[in-house]
Amino acid sequence: MEKLKHLLQEIEKEINSMKWPSKPDGLYEPLSYFLGIGGKRMRPLMSLMSAEMFGANPLDAMPAAMSVELFHNFSLIHDDIMDEAPLRRSMPTVHTKWNQNTAILSGDVMLIKSYQQLAAYKENLHELFTIFNDTAVGIWEGQQMDMNFETRDDVSIEEYLEMIRLKTSVLLGCSLKMGAVVGGADKNNADKIYSFGQDLGIAFQIKDDILDLYGDPEKFGKQIGGDIIANKKTLLYLLALEHGTAEQKAELKRLEEEKDLDKKVASVRSIFDAIGVLGMSEERMKKYETQALQALSEVSVEKERKADLENLAFYLMNRQN
Amino acid sequence: MEKLKHLLQEIEKEINSMKWPSKPDGLYEPLSYFLGIGGKRMRPLMSLMSAEMFGANPLDAMPAAMSVELFHNFSLIHDDIMDEAPLRRSMPTVHTKWNQNTAILSGDVMLIKSYQQLAAYKENLHELFTIFNDTAVGIWEGQQMDMNFETRDDVSIEEYLEMIRLKTSVLLGCSLKMGAVVGGADKNNADKIYSFGQDLGIAFQIKDDILDLYGDPEKFGKQIGGDIIANKKTLLYLLALEHGTAEQKAELKRLEEEKDLDKKVASVRSIFDAIGVLGMSEERMKKYETQALQALSEVSVEKERKADLENLAFYLMNRQN
Repeated sequence: MEKLKHLLQEIEKEINSMKWPSKPDGLYEPLSYFLGIGGKRMRPLMSLMSAEMFGANPLDAMPAAMSVELFHNFSLIHDDIMDEAPLRRSMPTVHTKWNQNTAILSGDVMLIKSYQQLAAYKENLHELFTIFNDTAVGIWEGQQMDMNFETRDDVSIEEYLEMIRLKTSVLLGCSLKMGAVVGGADKNNADKIYSFGQDLGIAFQIKDDILDLYGDPEKFGKQIGGDIIANKKTLLYLLALEHGTAEQKAELKRLEEEKDLDKKVASVRSIFDAIGVLGMSEERMKKYETQALQALSEVSVEKERKADLENLAFYLMNRQN
Repeated sequence: MEKLKHLLQEIEKEINSMKWPSKPDGLYEPLSYFLGIGGKRMRPLMSLMSAEMFGANPLDAMPAAMSVELFHNFSLIHDDIMDEAPLRRSMPTVHTKWNQNTAILSGDVMLIKSYQQLAAYKENLHELFTIFNDTAVGIWEGQQMDMNFETRDDVSIEEYLEMIRLKTSVLLGCSLKMGAVVGGADKNNADKIYSFGQDLGIAFQIKDDILDLYGDPEKFGKQIGGDIIANKKTLLYLLALEHGTAEQKAELKRLEEEKDLDKKVASVRSIFDAIGVLGMSEERMKKYETQALQALSEVSVEKERKADLENLAFYLMNRQN
């Protein structure tokens, strides 16, 4: 993993060296603040690794990598407003530290800046631009679906998977595909690497849902059962609705109003356990992980070149937080 | 003006024929609603006219025209949230008709859709994309300056003019310059037409400030003195601060708190009149108008080809609302 570490350092260096204008007051501070509070930098890393797999210097994909990272951060800033989230990565969100108008404005600027990164490319611009636009529209459709789900009681598992595909996974696909285009991949290979990212992203999100309840409290770093407390319709919950008895479903409904949060998490979990929700979720996750690795195996470059992305996938799927 | 009317019809036709997906519920309705409530369509018109002036079919510039119009509408949707404005063109704003989260989200999508229009160009994409990005960043800087001005008591006239240049004028310059690029203009001509738009935009905004207080109530269509009621630091107000006596300035300060709004507008106006603010504002406006027409005159195409844009400038500067 020495190489991954090196690429991650390059990404941090690039983010830290971004020159933000000092004027007007208040416009750019939130951007450098928010980018500075960290994150896994998984998306930009994927762009660099993908370019490298196709034989390019990974740093050639740095503008594309920054483009997806800025886009991701833009979406988080606006998300946090919409979710009224006070904290992100244990730090105050932009609308909390400044105010809502500043958060709207600086999110907008972050989005424009994310596009601006793509101007580093001339020859491939049209292709990169098209991938990026299509992805961005998809993410916003996923965002809207997620919002709509909050007030719906009849969300199907298929709809949920489609929502997380759009909201989370297409940006992973996009990161990899843009790296592939920079690396000179042909259309077939670029599409394969996109599929790899997309399926890996769905598996990754299911893993998130699982860790939220079944993670090791010592290693997870966040409160166990946060999704249950927030009455979120995760895959675990939807599977429970699909496979539970009428009685179990009624009990889950009742528990939405439970005020004793420890009791709420424990009771919901025991219903999930009785239904076997964990195994079903892991099965789904495994399915997408397998599909992802299958797509990667079909990319026509030498097998050794794929090792880094395989390792990354393994790391992401076996993480404890 | 038959030709202008024809181009405006083409613009409406294009807007009305935009295909918005029907899913997910709630994401696209606000976009077609907001685009449907109208507007002068001045920016897209300028793109088409500029392309035509340089010898192209004006409709070749339609995607660029839509790009600026969508961008403009995106900025209005987010502006309206930040200003807590209930109405826009006498119709409910997006955050009023739906809610704030929907307004944030649909503004974001509108911005992405505005970029997506540019993908219609391949050969010129890099140039158009760069103009567009630079303009977008400028507008957001102007937006932030405007926000900062609300809590400042020492805004200079130069700062104000810089703010309106960024917030309003660069998008007119951009509309014209993108049309010029589509029309095959060389760099020098493209820059000249940008200057024309930028200076015309500043004159246009000063005209706005003037009409708000000195417009004909019968023709203006909005409440006369709205800026005074809102204690807005317009050019008129800043000129009064610069040229008024200590007593007049103290009185203006006091009037900010005046509850009787008719009295407030009448009293501020009589101070403005005593100082001669109208004449000074018209002088500034005239200066930018002259600069604009000078830049247009320096564009190296036959004089007759410029007649339409000259007429448009004349129309905009002599409008009553």
